Amino acid sequence: MQAEIITIGDEILIGQIVDTNSAWMAKELNKIGISITKISSISDQQSEIVAALNNAQERVSLVFITGGLGPTNDDITKKTLSDYYGMSLIQDDELFEKIKLRLEKYRIPMNRFNREQALIPDKAKIIPNNFGTAPCMWFERDGKVAISMPGVPFEMKGIMENEIIPELRERYHTSSIFHKTIMVQGIGESVLAEMLSEWEANLPQSIKLAYLPSPGQVRLRLSTNGVNKQILKMEIERQVAALQEIVPKNIFSLEDLPMESVVSELLIKKGCSVGTAESCTGGYIAHLFTSHAGSSTYFKGSIVSYSNEVKQNLLKVKESDLITHGAVSKQVVEQMAIGARKTLNVDYAIATSGIAGPDGGTEDKPVGTVWIAVASETDVITEKLELYKIRERNIRAASLKALNLLRIQLLN
Amino acid sequence: MQAEIITIGDEILIGQIVDTNSAWMAKELNKIGISITKISSISDQQSEIVAALNNAQERVSLVFITGGLGPTNDDITKKTLSDYYGMSLIQDDELFEKIKLRLEKYRIPMNRFNREQALIPDKAKIIPNNFGTAPCMWFERDGKVAISMPGVPFEMKGIMENEIIPELRERYHTSSIFHKTIMVQGIGESVLAEMLSEWEANLPQSIKLAYLPSPGQVRLRLSTNGVNKQILKMEIERQVAALQEIVPKNIFSLEDLPMESVVSELLIKKGCSVGTAESCTGGYIAHLFTSHAGSSTYFKGSIVSYSNEVKQNLLKVKESDLITHGAVSKQVVEQMAIGARKTLNVDYAIATSGIAGPDGGTEDKPVGTVWIAVASETDVITEKLELYKIRERNIRAASLKALNLLRIQLLN
Repeated sequence: MQAEIITIGDEILIGQIVDTNSAWMAKELNKIGISITKISSISDQQSEIVAALNNAQERVSLVFITGGLGPTNDDITKKTLSDYYGMSLIQDDELFEKIKLRLEKYRIPMNRFNREQALIPDKAKIIPNNFGTAPCMWFERDGKVAISMPGVPFEMKGIMENEIIPELRERYHTSSIFHKTIMVQGIGESVLAEMLSEWEANLPQSIKLAYLPSPGQVRLRLSTNGVNKQILKMEIERQVAALQEIVPKNIFSLEDLPMESVVSELLIKKGCSVGTAESCTGGYIAHLFTSHAGSSTYFKGSIVSYSNEVKQNLLKVKESDLITHGAVSKQVVEQMAIGARKTLNVDYAIATSGIAGPDGGTEDKPVGTVWIAVASETDVITEKLELYKIRERNIRAASLKALNLLRIQLLN
Repeated sequence: MQAEIITIGDEILIGQIVDTNSAWMAKELNKIGISITKISSISDQQSEIVAALNNAQERVSLVFITGGLGPTNDDITKKTLSDYYGMSLIQDDELFEKIKLRLEKYRIPMNRFNREQALIPDKAKIIPNNFGTAPCMWFERDGKVAISMPGVPFEMKGIMENEIIPELRERYHTSSIFHKTIMVQGIGESVLAEMLSEWEANLPQSIKLAYLPSPGQVRLRLSTNGVNKQILKMEIERQVAALQEIVPKNIFSLEDLPMESVVSELLIKKGCSVGTAESCTGGYIAHLFTSHAGSSTYFKGSIVSYSNEVKQNLLKVKESDLITHGAVSKQVVEQMAIGARKTLNVDYAIATSGIAGPDGGTEDKPVGTVWIAVASETDVITEKLELYKIRERNIRAASLKALNLLRIQLLN
């Protein structure tokens, strides 16, 4: 089963927001055997919306539309789709009451914009939106379905998860698409491609391989589709086993999991706690850990020691080492990790110190020079990284490398 | 001048990666008067690439293509475009040498994948890529231009900034698009829309208004276009002045700046330092500060006190208050801010403590309950927030609210 996504909003076309909805929707739809063949982002104009919908419906019989349902005047999707399907907008009393109650809960008085949100196309199926006031609409004509949802990500996600996906599962009986993602750390894309070239050449025709590099890691994705999910799965598992023999140390997960989740699972399994002492990563590792519910079980805290004073006072880094070796050094990062382990009273502490850039490099220590360390009860291991020239990239790559260092420690 | 963007890659269509390139490109192109009228994401298939390019060139005479230029077998953009324009692939000796040198620098041996990257379409204009090994290609036929760039964000950005944008500026003499963004904190979208309804109704026809809500803030965007940039700018400034009279306290910036940059500017101006004590925001505020180059001038460090033990030991929160009032309370967040100010030796300290969710709420303190505080030399101000049910959203919204609390303090 194939579908397309249309996202509506001038804010996307002028680059003010990044369209994260499409990726999320595509991923969720893939899981139930619906593959997205095209994503189009268009402006809040009637002619554009009509053209894009006509166009998509020539190719596929299922179209997902997000955006343009807000209460303000720049949002015209509801009116446009209602006209397109020859419907009239009428007030939905139930929706009106719901909007009223919702506003009362937040002590917001109802105004004409909210009242207009209670208008619905008279012949469309209305899908409940429990996360906001914009209605979600299911249109259908000549066997072709178009579903219009709000563009606010958490509203769209709530509606998709609770209403649309279950409905689609019931309605369409589709063949399965099976993806397997293998997470690889520490080998660049082209080196990895060469290491895997023989294995890749011998993959069955039905299996497609893709390389997805990002700072500090490469995701390998094997994809196949067919009717018997069990057989697809077995064939893929066989290929993955062969792959693991080629790069045994660099694969950190056989699921599409972020590094911090892999580390967290190991910490939980071992019943160990962790903390961080972050200089160049500036709290990003702590943020990665705490982005996940339940992280308080193993994550106790961090000291973001941006200044040398904080390094000395809270992490007990020796002033003499800061002077002799500089903050970006093996000596200092070691002491940071040991200090954090003690101060935060944790089993493992991760430390980072480096030059994130874009400025601040020297000949000896160019931008991208980062020291990372992991302290445990028995020892401290350190590693020097030579990363990139771009701040954002360095923060992310150094964080992943440091987490991977802990992962390897936890496996030993 | 109008243009379209085509992004190529199965990873986008299965939702494995979010297309952040398009937003960045759209924004940069807008600045030089090129507006993006459509963004299409398609798969790594020859037929799809050809169809999308044909389609786009029917509507506009400038098309930007990203993706599918990697060294691996799943990337077919170069071959497809070369065929499309009736060209042959030949080795570019200069590019070959560059790739060789680059690989040597990273001590990576050259392999056939790298060698293939040195192949170029014989009649295309080759644009230097100083950030990677994939070439960037400029195709032209019948006055229509198509520019193919790598999909790796920092490579694409480097090429756009250094090569493409200067070239486009010189070549096309376009009318100006003028956008003005006004950042509003602390008023929801529909309430704001009502407050502004009269002002909005009186906007000149040539000015377009859009509301862009995200957790904790609404961006208002005024857009207009024409030939005389000075006149456009004056008219917009006049409207912004009127707007500021309606919501004087909630506008935190008249530029599209993130909250932390506005706060940082104020800190720099006052010569003050800042630190954070973060519980529910888990290091995210520290990460926001340290994402920006030069932050070490004013940002000294953070204590991410996820456990009560860290709150007591490093921030000197009283055990009795933790027991009596709980970690999510006015008493505790106040002590966290005061403790952080002292421990980190900073002028201002921000503190957060709350229930980020999705679980962990009680009847008294449901998920989304967050206390924030800002301590200065003279006082501590606190605020209780009742936020959402979604973890990611709560972390972001609480961080922005806390930063805004500091902003208001800095202005007083």
